[in-house]
Amino acid sequence: MDIAMEAAKKQTKDLYTLGPLIHNPQAVEFLEELGVKVKDRIEHIPRGTVIFRSHGVSLRDLTKARKKRLRIIDATCPIVKRAHLFAKYLHQHGYALLIVGDPQHPEVEAIQSYIPKGVEVVEEVESIQGLGPWEKLGIIAQTTQSFSLFKKVVAVCLERAKELRVFNTICHATTIRQMEAVEIAKKVDCMIVIGGYNSGNTQRLAAICRDIQPYTYHIETAQELHPEWLARREKIGLTAGASTPSWIIKEVELKIRHLKSLRG
Amino acid sequence: MDIAMEAAKKQTKDLYTLGPLIHNPQAVEFLEELGVKVKDRIEHIPRGTVIFRSHGVSLRDLTKARKKRLRIIDATCPIVKRAHLFAKYLHQHGYALLIVGDPQHPEVEAIQSYIPKGVEVVEEVESIQGLGPWEKLGIIAQTTQSFSLFKKVVAVCLERAKELRVFNTICHATTIRQMEAVEIAKKVDCMIVIGGYNSGNTQRLAAICRDIQPYTYHIETAQELHPEWLARREKIGLTAGASTPSWIIKEVELKIRHLKSLRG
Repeated sequence: MDIAMEAAKKQTKDLYTLGPLIHNPQAVEFLEELGVKVKDRIEHIPRGTVIFRSHGVSLRDLTKARKKRLRIIDATCPIVKRAHLFAKYLHQHGYALLIVGDPQHPEVEAIQSYIPKGVEVVEEVESIQGLGPWEKLGIIAQTTQSFSLFKKVVAVCLERAKELRVFNTICHATTIRQMEAVEIAKKVDCMIVIGGYNSGNTQRLAAICRDIQPYTYHIETAQELHPEWLARREKIGLTAGASTPSWIIKEVELKIRHLKSLRG
Repeated sequence: MDIAMEAAKKQTKDLYTLGPLIHNPQAVEFLEELGVKVKDRIEHIPRGTVIFRSHGVSLRDLTKARKKRLRIIDATCPIVKRAHLFAKYLHQHGYALLIVGDPQHPEVEAIQSYIPKGVEVVEEVESIQGLGPWEKLGIIAQTTQSFSLFKKVVAVCLERAKELRVFNTICHATTIRQMEAVEIAKKVDCMIVIGGYNSGNTQRLAAICRDIQPYTYHIETAQELHPEWLARREKIGLTAGASTPSWIIKEVELKIRHLKSLRG
């Protein structure tokens, strides 16, 4: 967000992001108001500057952008870049590669694109049964994956590999957020999870909270907060996905405080 | 056993094993009858030939045996030797080393003795909490460990290590035996586990079976089989620890068949 806002200050003509910058419609809307246009394909960017978002960019799109001589601003998250490096390292050292993540997620697609072949992506433990066996298996995770799934996958893969090499590529902030959300959910009567409906990490956060506190609600904005959810609930917990802008969180918090004080 | 019996054919004077050859008193007794003497310490072997048993030998004992110019017959199990190699490899490549196993077991003690420092041995998941965190952690297992514990330890270690490198050193035959015992235990009304009381892998085998079939009995010899265990039990399952000689298994089987046909 900061990189895109900085770029928009200097130039707004022909400034594009490849895909929505983050999985949060309100933040994307805000950037569009600043003049940052969203294009889903390099082909649709005629000229100017392209911002590669935090999820990273596939080898194919990178090659196309270079061929078109677009100016590139690389806003790939450093944690994601680290995962790219580990994936390449494992591949170069003769490990079959397994990514714990959503095969449709742009981050996973990008990582996969740099490895010539032999990459498997699994989103559930059951999918491993058909894979391997492996002599040498390398495992990494999508940076915003659930740590609990990562652990389960590693344990099951051990049944099918002689050697396992695992790099914990899960974003520490994501793990901390999930752990904190669990702690909060245990103590409250109602849990509000804020973040884009299309954000995988917010969905996982909501699922983790719902396991503990059935009264868990996933919302995108303060407008969606229903007063009746909070009625008869004394302690309200709040958490938000990685890409939720702080102003949205603040709005939700204020609305909750307002509603609760109205009810006294 | 074969190596020791072969050695006893050629020479019986001054032929020793360092510690009981295998964790089975009946087999050790049989060897003693052949003239193979058991000594617990190199110091107690005056001269002649020493057989290093399947568990392997510690660096200390190896050095002592060489200094005493004893003739060495190395009967270390090749699967155990492989575990030694992986332990050394991990240490040389800068990994902290964790062994999943019994810290008192001669195999684990031997592996540990070749690594200058920084080796942890854990026999239960709870012990990991006080260890680490690690940048690079290597994990191997005692060759006759429970695979299920190995998996659990690896999963928990992932919480405390940035990189994990795991070599599955569990003896495939042991894993297969445990899996087969589970399958048998599911189908029978009574389970007999044969093997030395001092054999860790037999104890684990009995524990695994008992989880599924409460009527599980651990015996060392056919003499210990109580007829009343089999009364009113239709299907009797049989399994044995890694070091149980086949003649003992055969004896138990014959006794069960005899008792059942008597009641038949």
